[in-house]
Amino acid sequence: MTSYERGAGAFELPHHDGSALYVPQQRPGLGDTVTVRLRVPLDYPEAAVHVRMVRDGEPRMAAARLAQTDSDARWYEADVLVHNPVTRYRFMLVDPDGYAWLNARGLIRRGVTDEYDFQLTTAPRAPRWLRDAVVYQIFPDRFARSGRRHGATPDWAIPAEWDDEPIPAGPGVGQQFYGGDLDGVVDRLDHVADLGVTTVYLTPIFPGRSNHRYDASTFDHVDPLLGGDDALARLRGALSARGMRLVGDITTNHTGAGHEWFARARADENAPERDFYYWTQEEPGYVGWLEHSSLPKLDYRSPELARRMIEGAGSVVGRWLQPPFSLDGWRVDVANMTGRYGEIDDTAAVARTVRETIEDINPDGILISEHFHDARADLTGEGWHGNMNYSAFTRPLWSWLADPASGLSLLGLPAGTPRASGAAMVEQMRDFDAATPWPVLLNHWNMLCSHDTPRIRTVVGDPALVEVAAGLLLTYLGVPAIFAGDELGLTGTTGEHARVPMPWDRPERRDERTHEAYRSLIALRHAHPALREGSLRWVLIEDDAVGYLRETADETLLVVVARRPWAGTVLPARWSAAPQTIYGAHDLTEADEGWAVHGDGPAVGVWRLR
Amino acid sequence: MTSYERGAGAFELPHHDGSALYVPQQRPGLGDTVTVRLRVPLDYPEAAVHVRMVRDGEPRMAAARLAQTDSDARWYEADVLVHNPVTRYRFMLVDPDGYAWLNARGLIRRGVTDEYDFQLTTAPRAPRWLRDAVVYQIFPDRFARSGRRHGATPDWAIPAEWDDEPIPAGPGVGQQFYGGDLDGVVDRLDHVADLGVTTVYLTPIFPGRSNHRYDASTFDHVDPLLGGDDALARLRGALSARGMRLVGDITTNHTGAGHEWFARARADENAPERDFYYWTQEEPGYVGWLEHSSLPKLDYRSPELARRMIEGAGSVVGRWLQPPFSLDGWRVDVANMTGRYGEIDDTAAVARTVRETIEDINPDGILISEHFHDARADLTGEGWHGNMNYSAFTRPLWSWLADPASGLSLLGLPAGTPRASGAAMVEQMRDFDAATPWPVLLNHWNMLCSHDTPRIRTVVGDPALVEVAAGLLLTYLGVPAIFAGDELGLTGTTGEHARVPMPWDRPERRDERTHEAYRSLIALRHAHPALREGSLRWVLIEDDAVGYLRETADETLLVVVARRPWAGTVLPARWSAAPQTIYGAHDLTEADEGWAVHGDGPAVGVWRLR
Repeated sequence: MTSYERGAGAFELPHHDGSALYVPQQRPGLGDTVTVRLRVPLDYPEAAVHVRMVRDGEPRMAAARLAQTDSDARWYEADVLVHNPVTRYRFMLVDPDGYAWLNARGLIRRGVTDEYDFQLTTAPRAPRWLRDAVVYQIFPDRFARSGRRHGATPDWAIPAEWDDEPIPAGPGVGQQFYGGDLDGVVDRLDHVADLGVTTVYLTPIFPGRSNHRYDASTFDHVDPLLGGDDALARLRGALSARGMRLVGDITTNHTGAGHEWFARARADENAPERDFYYWTQEEPGYVGWLEHSSLPKLDYRSPELARRMIEGAGSVVGRWLQPPFSLDGWRVDVANMTGRYGEIDDTAAVARTVRETIEDINPDGILISEHFHDARADLTGEGWHGNMNYSAFTRPLWSWLADPASGLSLLGLPAGTPRASGAAMVEQMRDFDAATPWPVLLNHWNMLCSHDTPRIRTVVGDPALVEVAAGLLLTYLGVPAIFAGDELGLTGTTGEHARVPMPWDRPERRDERTHEAYRSLIALRHAHPALREGSLRWVLIEDDAVGYLRETADETLLVVVARRPWAGTVLPARWSAAPQTIYGAHDLTEADEGWAVHGDGPAVGVWRLR
Repeated sequence: MTSYERGAGAFELPHHDGSALYVPQQRPGLGDTVTVRLRVPLDYPEAAVHVRMVRDGEPRMAAARLAQTDSDARWYEADVLVHNPVTRYRFMLVDPDGYAWLNARGLIRRGVTDEYDFQLTTAPRAPRWLRDAVVYQIFPDRFARSGRRHGATPDWAIPAEWDDEPIPAGPGVGQQFYGGDLDGVVDRLDHVADLGVTTVYLTPIFPGRSNHRYDASTFDHVDPLLGGDDALARLRGALSARGMRLVGDITTNHTGAGHEWFARARADENAPERDFYYWTQEEPGYVGWLEHSSLPKLDYRSPELARRMIEGAGSVVGRWLQPPFSLDGWRVDVANMTGRYGEIDDTAAVARTVRETIEDINPDGILISEHFHDARADLTGEGWHGNMNYSAFTRPLWSWLADPASGLSLLGLPAGTPRASGAAMVEQMRDFDAATPWPVLLNHWNMLCSHDTPRIRTVVGDPALVEVAAGLLLTYLGVPAIFAGDELGLTGTTGEHARVPMPWDRPERRDERTHEAYRSLIALRHAHPALREGSLRWVLIEDDAVGYLRETADETLLVVVARRPWAGTVLPARWSAAPQTIYGAHDLTEADEGWAVHGDGPAVGVWRLR
């Protein structure tokens, strides 16, 4: 359907996205007139260019003007009035063959819906550090033991040795207890810093009756098994000393059945906490998350719940943002279901309230949703800053790289699903990204896996493909979020099995080649702003290799990743005067008509073209 | 991208839609469990079938069961709990080649967004007569003169003779005054009834300062130039006597600058009408529709405006639904912009209020929006029953049939745009339809043109292609809405030029072959419920010919339309034991492996297969 499906090898198409190269005014306000720029390659047919803008529900067309012709492209400009909080626009190119629309989905030669129009939004932006971050996800029970004593092992726990294999599924999976703690994290920050991580994200640290702690019994203090409040304060201090950020994990959707609020709500129909939950006629008498009676769902129609949980400095959300803990923001568990039940849909309101609380207390704080599926409607930029990006990153990437022989069920896909083509991966990424405003795309947490999925190493089945996946992760649009241990090549067949303790003292379990690849790719990302905020332009889509340009006014980088050997291609000579290899085994070599890209694979290459 | 792009000739694919064949329970309530059925052709690979449902923002998968195998297909069934007011679902088919999703957009072999999931909605349904209607749009100044005298020609009017050609554009276009009136409509109802029309839709009948009357000076009485309130009552009576319906046209978005409310609002800052409009610092001091100072825009933040205009029996909307006028509903002008301005978006609330007013006064009343563009977000079924379907019908149909040599700019497309392929037309129809619940699709007013566009005869340039267009119109999903005069082959190069007086006494201007085609196709629609409420299944998509099945439990009809001669095709023998031609020049003839469809064109054929 889109034009880049048509051919082989490197290609150029008219392009626009929300980056500063194309939208110089990055933070428009209501009433502003914003210049939007369109890049048309020199070898594209001479076309008349128009912009179509939607104002108050009605489209208008205006001619774009040719602003500049350089050695590479013609640049057109048009003015768009930011009349609505979200102002949609797209381009029309009229050439002798007819017309084509250019929207965030690509170039399409027929009528299209407004779904994938580019969007200018007046929603406040996330703090800048977020887009520059490399996030490192730590599951506290499995990262490191400090050796401090935290009292008796609780009754629910099944103690495990550090080197034991996690139970993949079934009985004991939530109770297997390794005893990692927050001072253990402090002790291992050299490893984290050496990797190039800027931000630590901790899965829940409140007490519960499980090793994952998503079943909080209170939000008032840190689990003593992790070292308690003081340990969190120590971790905060240690991270701050290294200039690193710390993000927490909050279950706005539910509490544990052992939560103090739930106990009061159950004991007394007149308790203020009674309205915090959804009560039903059926067993067990209340609504649990996905019918789990251990996880009663919270009902945000209760103003008192909002006050306690999400609203203002005294709320749970607000309190932990303040000293001595000073969290730099929250990742919100099950954000997709938070506030949604039957006829009730308070999700947007909950998200906005949490956002306001964060902005009031710490304007530099961030807010990331967990939404595994089609999160687009929730990603307006007013609530969550960005999303844990399974749908527009992890799932399409897995579809291209996952080993059909792994026998794993992959994020809902049947086991044995054949590997998708590069085109199918890119189509899927664009489908899920193209309706989301660019400033939100910058904030997404892209992942290769998480504590809820099999490990990337197990998914792709080959360390060389882990490097390919990491190559995409660290050069793509959005914030890389690494599950601790991926950099050592840890394995796991389920989310639970993937929560494997870090093999600090087991060198034979550490894949140092993968470790080095991560370290280098992270350093590359830090060194090149184009990888963090540059335009993203697809220029190569083959079954076994894909490539894109990341571009700012200062530099143009080419990224090519291949899952197996492929034919290679030749880039137009005018793309670069003297390409410089900044990652990978092969230089671009001079060919008859341009620069030859080697058909090596599995491989990652990054070149500075300009 | 979708699988039916793959091949030539007639094809079958797994299919589901919202019709009763596939969703037996057509009016589910919250909490109901609904059976959804999937049809898998016998020659489709053996597949495991699952249904994916979204509940409170979270998808769940369930296995579908094989319910029945007949000579034609395997039928699978699954149960979907209607837990949310809109419950989304789609199917997954897993076969040895991998998996495919089936959503309302078609069959797709990669990850898809939720955008095009099928939808079960608990929104109340439109009255049944709407789906059975054939609508006839009358522009009162141009339909017929009764000869009654209505007082002096007003100062703004430029009198025209009945046989004069309308001014296509520029000065005088809104003032050219032919003097058609409502008793003229009464006088010509034999023509309307003979055609098979069931519903008359009148463009505005309130007084204004233009021939189109979209600039009302009052909503309190019918324009005396049209015969006043009594004439409307007479027309109502005459239509009721024939069992016909009458729909009005209301400008909820704006009034004329000559409106009595606007006069009071301008004269007195303390007038209750002051808040009815948007006042600005710039000239002319208020917001006009598309900056037309003659059409001040209404501001629905004013409760008093809502009370006067849309809310309750005393409102404008309510009053004309009552005797002696008893309108059967409203078409809402510029519905896409109504209530939208800058940060304000009250459109959904306005639509719901109008709907409630109609339902309170006349539960048998209908509500249709005018929205030329991407109306999908406004078509939830809670407000407008359906939309004037330019985007999912007229525009794609024109893209396939419009003559590039016409020199016309066609609904925003550049003049000279080459004809699109059948696949591009179908893709575009599906893009715009697939996110809309089936019960809303049944209510859309499909058009070949309107008083706002060039005439279909001029667009396609060939009477044989008008029959092709009418063939689609009268056999497709949604309510056919015919602009009076199309059935006589009238022409017009712009909306204004198309408002040509009916040539009652000019037989040389009437195309009786086209007239007969309309009459026959309308009769066909009335005779076959499958054309009005049957499933719609595409089975033929060629550049020059497309075909679909309309199907109920009682019958299966095949429609094939061709814009020029094509290769013809052969249908599988099992599709029919003895096909019966119910429209068109050619029978299906026996061929070696099935039934041969003749490659005639331009042509329309409709066959009863079962």
